[in-house]
Amino acid sequence: MSSIKINIDNAGVGRELGAIEGEVMQAMCTLHEGSGAGNDFLGWVHLPSSISGTQLDEIRQTADALRAKADLIIVIGIGGSYLGAKAVIEAMGDSFGYLRKQQGPTVVFAGQNLSEDYLYELMQAAGEHEVAAIVISKSGTTTEPAVAFRLVKEAIEKRYGKAEAATRIVAVTDAARGALRKLATQEGYKTFVIPDNVGGRFSVLTPVGLLPIAVAGIDIAALVRGAQEMEAATAPSVPFAENPAAIYAAARNILYRKGFKTEILAAYEPKLLFVAEWWKQLYGESEGKEHKGIFPASVTLTADLHSMGQYIQQGERTLMETVISVGAPQHTVQIDADAENLDGLNFLAGKRVSGVNRMAELGTMLAHVDGGVPNIKIEIPAVTPHHIGALLYFFEAACGISGYTLGVNPFDQPGVEAYKKNMFALLDKPGYEAEGKAIRERLK
Amino acid sequence: MSSIKINIDNAGVGRELGAIEGEVMQAMCTLHEGSGAGNDFLGWVHLPSSISGTQLDEIRQTADALRAKADLIIVIGIGGSYLGAKAVIEAMGDSFGYLRKQQGPTVVFAGQNLSEDYLYELMQAAGEHEVAAIVISKSGTTTEPAVAFRLVKEAIEKRYGKAEAATRIVAVTDAARGALRKLATQEGYKTFVIPDNVGGRFSVLTPVGLLPIAVAGIDIAALVRGAQEMEAATAPSVPFAENPAAIYAAARNILYRKGFKTEILAAYEPKLLFVAEWWKQLYGESEGKEHKGIFPASVTLTADLHSMGQYIQQGERTLMETVISVGAPQHTVQIDADAENLDGLNFLAGKRVSGVNRMAELGTMLAHVDGGVPNIKIEIPAVTPHHIGALLYFFEAACGISGYTLGVNPFDQPGVEAYKKNMFALLDKPGYEAEGKAIRERLK
Repeated sequence: MSSIKINIDNAGVGRELGAIEGEVMQAMCTLHEGSGAGNDFLGWVHLPSSISGTQLDEIRQTADALRAKADLIIVIGIGGSYLGAKAVIEAMGDSFGYLRKQQGPTVVFAGQNLSEDYLYELMQAAGEHEVAAIVISKSGTTTEPAVAFRLVKEAIEKRYGKAEAATRIVAVTDAARGALRKLATQEGYKTFVIPDNVGGRFSVLTPVGLLPIAVAGIDIAALVRGAQEMEAATAPSVPFAENPAAIYAAARNILYRKGFKTEILAAYEPKLLFVAEWWKQLYGESEGKEHKGIFPASVTLTADLHSMGQYIQQGERTLMETVISVGAPQHTVQIDADAENLDGLNFLAGKRVSGVNRMAELGTMLAHVDGGVPNIKIEIPAVTPHHIGALLYFFEAACGISGYTLGVNPFDQPGVEAYKKNMFALLDKPGYEAEGKAIRERLK
Repeated sequence: MSSIKINIDNAGVGRELGAIEGEVMQAMCTLHEGSGAGNDFLGWVHLPSSISGTQLDEIRQTADALRAKADLIIVIGIGGSYLGAKAVIEAMGDSFGYLRKQQGPTVVFAGQNLSEDYLYELMQAAGEHEVAAIVISKSGTTTEPAVAFRLVKEAIEKRYGKAEAATRIVAVTDAARGALRKLATQEGYKTFVIPDNVGGRFSVLTPVGLLPIAVAGIDIAALVRGAQEMEAATAPSVPFAENPAAIYAAARNILYRKGFKTEILAAYEPKLLFVAEWWKQLYGESEGKEHKGIFPASVTLTADLHSMGQYIQQGERTLMETVISVGAPQHTVQIDADAENLDGLNFLAGKRVSGVNRMAELGTMLAHVDGGVPNIKIEIPAVTPHHIGALLYFFEAACGISGYTLGVNPFDQPGVEAYKKNMFALLDKPGYEAEGKAIRERLK
């Protein structure tokens, strides 16, 4: 019995479901047989069931060693080397932990932008803390993380000396090749491997995601167990109607063909904001090509009912909404009665805040469906490492199926190079001399 | 000379600009004459020039009194009573200020969601700090802020006693009516007025925005001066071609008519994330009605070039991109040379990080335009209170013009009630008995 349930009763796809079933099952076969485009990047499919206890132990031991040395751990990475860890750490963390006195190490991220102020302010803050760093890059030469790592490495070495610095820096990189592997060997850093057959946006269950998540004090074994559960629940042997990944892939492709070109991922728990950001990369990068693909957007509710809510209710009718519905909170807050009841809230007295939140969710779903926004509901019992692990794998499995159903290679990202090429040309990077000349001519 | 410049050279609207000019100028007249729909909500138009020094002094004095008493200030509000303050405070704040020892009070937000865990964790953290609160609500009965305020008020009164609590709570509410006004009078809270003729999403330059911004230690006089500058620069006497608000309204309406239905607001400074969230409410709520309107989305770059970048470059060709381009950072970080140069970054040695960021921005603009994404550039010299004030007013002025050009009432939000009605019915709110019965029948 899977902990993730999908409900498409309000998606308005009942009639078309039978017609697309064959296509979706074929896409699933293509994925699991490895017979489709991008089939050298399928390492993520059996990742949950193939992670050994020894591997998890090694990650945890390394994480514990960093936690013992540092109260501020800087994780350097971009794209898939950033969003998976960020998503899980935000989901599992205390929203106001930074205001608490008794806390484990704080995990912060760098190398995901080129903001001078961001780096300046980070380095100033780092000076007031005991620092360690995890640098994540397959090549070691991606501009954003490479710039950040130069700064962080220099600061750590200056402060602690080169020998101690080498114990405070861990690299997650290619097994053998690349600048970061070479540097790590030379400096004697502890390293973990980014597998060749797992693309960035599918890498959260490799050391790319697991090491930063472990450093934040989160139970990575539970995360992996949740993913294992979904690996089984989305296996090709599971019939279409019982396979949540197949159903999600089917529903969103039916809706896309009917003209619903934007999918809004909504959550009523603000901690899931970066799960939505991770999801945007997963689906946007996998499907947004060949002038096709559902545009992925996200909202945090009920907050955004008071901002994007008007548009969702009455704007262009090209939106579908997918809600991550959380069964129960981790804590308890009850609404008390008030003698005066000036705010008129006494009808809620004795209720828990989450009870009100659930009625807001249900009421919103009905309102949006009435307004012409098809609804897909993905239910998770609670925001725990186990269920978040299951949710992440669910989205990955559905993404592979959905991309093949759409008719694209879900595992490449040819469009990501265009800006880099221009940037290198403008920055006179060696090897880009001709492009530099051409781009300057164009800008005249 | 305005500090905000708009560049539509890469928007591909040159040919259509002449044809829409008349419409846009008429929309501007309608706005400034107050002859259009929603004309009882035009108080924001001359707000910057009408704020007196006395009003600013009163806000600052109140803010200083709260800052003297508390190191954690909880601002309670939702929608326009949340996003304007949040946008400015994030833009002006230190990204890692929470990790610093020497800091002014921390401002946190509540009442913008119904998350039980969020409220629980906030109240736990509040227990470790000296606390004050600003509660912002026109009526005092909006569910989200009312629930949060019940909790916060009770906690403050329990801790400090009722008399002291009354000095730690400030209310921003209606001048005369409503539950919060009545409560504030009864409890003796200091109060500020939400003007009747300024809608929530246009209220950042009223005490709704200014008090929380002042409490965060930000120069509100500079913010208002920047807005004043833009009030003059977008006045109806300014010719079309020199009026950045008219040009922005024209360009986005041309693109919308050509089938570009989604506008992505992009910034290369992560601190501007919530300026984009504020912008989403402003445009989404003003224009998303009658099954019309541009869908507002946002990205933080270069981070999201490694997530949404693939879609923007090669997905469905219905996207336009508007970039907030920042002239210069506040701090200085230089990239140093490295003897080994394993990461191959020495071609950047001696350059500032912001120089690389600017080339990333330029390279991305060219790549996206080549890919079929029209580009609008809004240039601000720096992220300072003055320029952010100018930027906010620029977007407001352009929004009023753009909404009238689109042919909707930009100042109502009829769709926001639908979810509330269902929620109240499901929660058995007094007065919703019939709706409650109907909705339960439907859910059977």
